[in-house]
Amino acid sequence: MTLLKVVVGMLALLVAVPCTAQNPLPSWNDGPTKKAILEFVAAVTDEKGKDYVEPADRIATFDNDGTLWVEYPMYTQFLFTFERVKELAPKHPQWKTTQPFQGVLEGDMKAVAASGMKGLMELVIATHSGMTAAEFEKDASHWLATTKDSRFNRLYTELVYQPQLELLAYLRANGFKTFIVSGGGIQFMRAISESVYGIPADQIIGSSIVSEFQAKGSKPVIVRMPKIGFINDKAGKPVGIYEHIGRRPILAFGNSDSDMQMIEYTMAGEGRRLGLFVHHTDADREYAYDRKSHVGTLDTALDQADANGWIIVSMKNDWKTVFPD
Amino acid sequence: MTLLKVVVGMLALLVAVPCTAQNPLPSWNDGPTKKAILEFVAAVTDEKGKDYVEPADRIATFDNDGTLWVEYPMYTQFLFTFERVKELAPKHPQWKTTQPFQGVLEGDMKAVAASGMKGLMELVIATHSGMTAAEFEKDASHWLATTKDSRFNRLYTELVYQPQLELLAYLRANGFKTFIVSGGGIQFMRAISESVYGIPADQIIGSSIVSEFQAKGSKPVIVRMPKIGFINDKAGKPVGIYEHIGRRPILAFGNSDSDMQMIEYTMAGEGRRLGLFVHHTDADREYAYDRKSHVGTLDTALDQADANGWIIVSMKNDWKTVFPD
Repeated sequence: MTLLKVVVGMLALLVAVPCTAQNPLPSWNDGPTKKAILEFVAAVTDEKGKDYVEPADRIATFDNDGTLWVEYPMYTQFLFTFERVKELAPKHPQWKTTQPFQGVLEGDMKAVAASGMKGLMELVIATHSGMTAAEFEKDASHWLATTKDSRFNRLYTELVYQPQLELLAYLRANGFKTFIVSGGGIQFMRAISESVYGIPADQIIGSSIVSEFQAKGSKPVIVRMPKIGFINDKAGKPVGIYEHIGRRPILAFGNSDSDMQMIEYTMAGEGRRLGLFVHHTDADREYAYDRKSHVGTLDTALDQADANGWIIVSMKNDWKTVFPD
Repeated sequence: MTLLKVVVGMLALLVAVPCTAQNPLPSWNDGPTKKAILEFVAAVTDEKGKDYVEPADRIATFDNDGTLWVEYPMYTQFLFTFERVKELAPKHPQWKTTQPFQGVLEGDMKAVAASGMKGLMELVIATHSGMTAAEFEKDASHWLATTKDSRFNRLYTELVYQPQLELLAYLRANGFKTFIVSGGGIQFMRAISESVYGIPADQIIGSSIVSEFQAKGSKPVIVRMPKIGFINDKAGKPVGIYEHIGRRPILAFGNSDSDMQMIEYTMAGEGRRLGLFVHHTDADREYAYDRKSHVGTLDTALDQADANGWIIVSMKNDWKTVFPD
């Protein structure tokens, strides 16, 4: 076993070099934000330091929409939902005259918005249920692999933030387990989380519809039912974390008021903690929005950040690059 | 990077030796059961073989009660529940005359059993809610660290099955991610899963009560509410797997009819699969029970095992050792 220990030691050294001594976050500009991240990770991984955290407790949670990938001008999953409505419309002739389906079919987003959360949930249920788990995953994967954003002419899976990909990898290299904790659909994200973020399906937490185990002939399958199960948003996020992870994170990263409870919950634990919000301040490279935005509203959190020690990350100033090459 | 590759290669060799060439499951007797396990793992990890499975899809799920630790004559969590009823009784004088609480306080298990599932759920709610997540974890951990089983005079965490600890470690050494999928309470198991099974809290799936995020003064906490959330048993197991893992397992191990749906779901996937049941056949070293038992009933699964290719593991014949030294 001595040789094994030596080899493990050598390996640890080799792995550690690119993550600490060299520049581990090349797409982050030098400044107080990057410094705070590097200092936090150094502190919780220093076995001799007062802030040391055992690897099992190095839990980092990230919101998805607006934190890891673009959410503006419309959440990607809603775009998928609208496309599915159009595909399914021939089977539902009544949708032509029923809101919010009519609004989707006519491209009348004001009518869709006027239907409120209730209307949006109707759209989600109509398009995300009634199929098996495997069928849904195939639909979501296919759409995500083939549909491009109109402004950037890129797949949505290419509109992820390069600095965040580096941060996720850096945290994992330092013994963190990285999770997504999103208001988005848990199974929609799972279709791409491993390939895009390097996060396995079981480390994705999101909203869900009710599912059932059914024996279809000799082939038992999971069938997605027309009923909302859990909304993993706002105060639902710490609950989702408790159900899925069972441990309080030590780092949480969001971008909107909907992430406040997750970050409050994270920061309220004992020992050193880090809570961050992406502030979309870059209309040239991405978008600029906050208090008045219809998606990713960042208002109360912006007011309370200083008092609570939350870090506001300016996309414009803190990120050297926004998207991967 | 060449040196890194060499070192990784050396390390892989060193790790592989004790897991394959040597005897990786010393507490399993040689015979068809052990052979089937070894052949299955060899097949799904052979990159050049037709049954190869990518590491990301090497998901193995284990029931807990009766599969990883003793469940007879009573599920451990119910013993904890009964103890908590006795502790809390002074604050609830009406329990002296209200079933099933009265039965617990008087040691009248027939009265408790007569209250049925509804009564048991009342006991669970009365003892598992009304506190914060941290308080519950502390209670459960303390009880599990101090309470001994009367027959074996051992902590319940020492009444785990040595052959299964070896199997869990063997699977992980071969790139599997191991999960517990139990009808037991998710947070009760999480109190000990890492230390006893080497399985982190987020890889535990179980039944749950509803929880809420509450700001208690300046300290946001999760509070456990007096309401059952999800029952992760029977047809609930594949649903719990879908919600938490999002991938169909390729190996599932249970011990009772309650595990049938999990194993059916596992076996129905494409490619090579393995489904196993512990059969409690060893009254001397542990217990002997199956079709007529009030816990861990193994009846239908026993009848259908052959036809479905499920492996029935005989504790008496297949296990050299039952408990760790």
